[in-house]
Amino acid sequence: MRIIFLGTSAGRPTKARNVTSVALLLDKRNRFWLFDAGEGTQHRLLGSKLKLNKLDRIFITHLHGDHLYGLPGLLASRSYFEGAGPLKLYGPPGIREYVESAFRLSEAHLDYELETIEAEPGMLIEDDQYTVEVRELEHRIRCFGYRVTERPSPGRLDLAALERLGVPFGPLLGKLKRGEDVLLDNGMLVRSSDVTGAPIKGRAVAFLGDTTPCDDAVVLGKEADLLVHEATFAPGMEEKALAYGHSTFRQAAEIAAQAGAKRLVVTHFSSRFDDEEVERMVDGAKIIFPNIEAAREYAEIEVAKPK
Amino acid sequence: MRIIFLGTSAGRPTKARNVTSVALLLDKRNRFWLFDAGEGTQHRLLGSKLKLNKLDRIFITHLHGDHLYGLPGLLASRSYFEGAGPLKLYGPPGIREYVESAFRLSEAHLDYELETIEAEPGMLIEDDQYTVEVRELEHRIRCFGYRVTERPSPGRLDLAALERLGVPFGPLLGKLKRGEDVLLDNGMLVRSSDVTGAPIKGRAVAFLGDTTPCDDAVVLGKEADLLVHEATFAPGMEEKALAYGHSTFRQAAEIAAQAGAKRLVVTHFSSRFDDEEVERMVDGAKIIFPNIEAAREYAEIEVAKPK
Repeated sequence: MRIIFLGTSAGRPTKARNVTSVALLLDKRNRFWLFDAGEGTQHRLLGSKLKLNKLDRIFITHLHGDHLYGLPGLLASRSYFEGAGPLKLYGPPGIREYVESAFRLSEAHLDYELETIEAEPGMLIEDDQYTVEVRELEHRIRCFGYRVTERPSPGRLDLAALERLGVPFGPLLGKLKRGEDVLLDNGMLVRSSDVTGAPIKGRAVAFLGDTTPCDDAVVLGKEADLLVHEATFAPGMEEKALAYGHSTFRQAAEIAAQAGAKRLVVTHFSSRFDDEEVERMVDGAKIIFPNIEAAREYAEIEVAKPK
Repeated sequence: MRIIFLGTSAGRPTKARNVTSVALLLDKRNRFWLFDAGEGTQHRLLGSKLKLNKLDRIFITHLHGDHLYGLPGLLASRSYFEGAGPLKLYGPPGIREYVESAFRLSEAHLDYELETIEAEPGMLIEDDQYTVEVRELEHRIRCFGYRVTERPSPGRLDLAALERLGVPFGPLLGKLKRGEDVLLDNGMLVRSSDVTGAPIKGRAVAFLGDTTPCDDAVVLGKEADLLVHEATFAPGMEEKALAYGHSTFRQAAEIAAQAGAKRLVVTHFSSRFDDEEVERMVDGAKIIFPNIEAAREYAEIEVAKPK
């Protein structure tokens, strides 16, 4: 799992930063999901290695324009890409009407199947590789955070136990690793649970939309391998942050610390701050949460496997 | 009058070209109007000398996404610019619902007055400096062309006549030039019409939306000082152009020739063509209309004063 920041600006684009979007790369062939799609996200993708036919899910945190206005164009352009299969779009209630009215008035037609799902807090989205948990944050309008967790992978084989039980090398090992019990030629039953370690926990990445500090931000970030959290305002601007439903750099660090997250990347910077100021505020927040860093346009971040 | 191309691509953006938008610069302080606003137009403006608080009219030719999807973000971002006054938005019926539903669902609020006018063919939009004529073109959905004409300026003063009539140098000359008759100290009435030449015709620039060749394209381009016409397809692709409501490079040149336009700039190129191919097709069309050129991203074109 890797993520690429396609936009790190709050409210409006600047010369250096685009409005919000983050890609989650799922495999070596760059299959990916998107979290938010501010205007110009499809343009950012053109400058990256990511191709729209490898995108199969989009999660919108909330319907503010700087997270949303790139969606119709991106969905329409995806029709030009060969082999673009079905796409699932998740977002707060209203997302369907937004896409449908834009497409109806602009007479856009897609060459692939788009399934739009209006999410609700507590929803669990599952496929055979990942689960995505939806929780509601505290912003001026309904805003969600999404926590993506890899399904656990089979525990490691206990080589000493296998030898002791006389399990021969070969296809039986694969079955045992996958959780199946096997019968040896000598009639002995070997239970998978006797020769494999505990399942290995999958990685968890939490993508939070715009929010003022709240309990569900902590729940979503709980021991996450990576927490992506907004940091719109400077430390000291907490009152303004509260009024606008945002967080300061320091508050983002506090949430990561409370959650016991392993790593924090802050994004969604007010256009008033240049990169130097952002770095200074990140440095200042290290006393609260040392493993904090600032998102940069096009920065690619590998989510480390848990040890 | 100068124009700047902010996007020259048809259908979707490419690495090199953005989707359609053209700015018309009206004075030395870069007050400007926009014709179309594909996604990313506000990003293009950030890379230009144009500031959103100097924009006071937007004309949308039609509601296809590549001409439209940048509108909500641009309108919302304009609120951040100090001194952004009222803005008038013109477009085909449906434009109001498009903007209103995007703003309602994204809970966007503007800090300035936006007046949306659903245009109709035959409409004449006038202010004290310009008239804009609206005509309907032939595309897959309703699509307009806009012809902007400067109001005539006062004719030149006839210096010999002024001397003969004994008009002294000074403020009287300004009055005469502006069309007022004046009374000299010696009691003689001097008529403006006796000492000024014919009013000088203003420049005319025609911005056409997507269209297959049609009569109203010729009417809009009639003796225009500059005609901006789409050229989506290559010569020889006329059948495809007709099916999709577009024109080839050759057809754009034919319209300019029929209209007796003085200069033609083609734009809205299919993403299949690179700049070299575009130049070749422009060269090929010169036999039909020699004063043709291809729009380039950020190219600034001065509209020459009529001689």
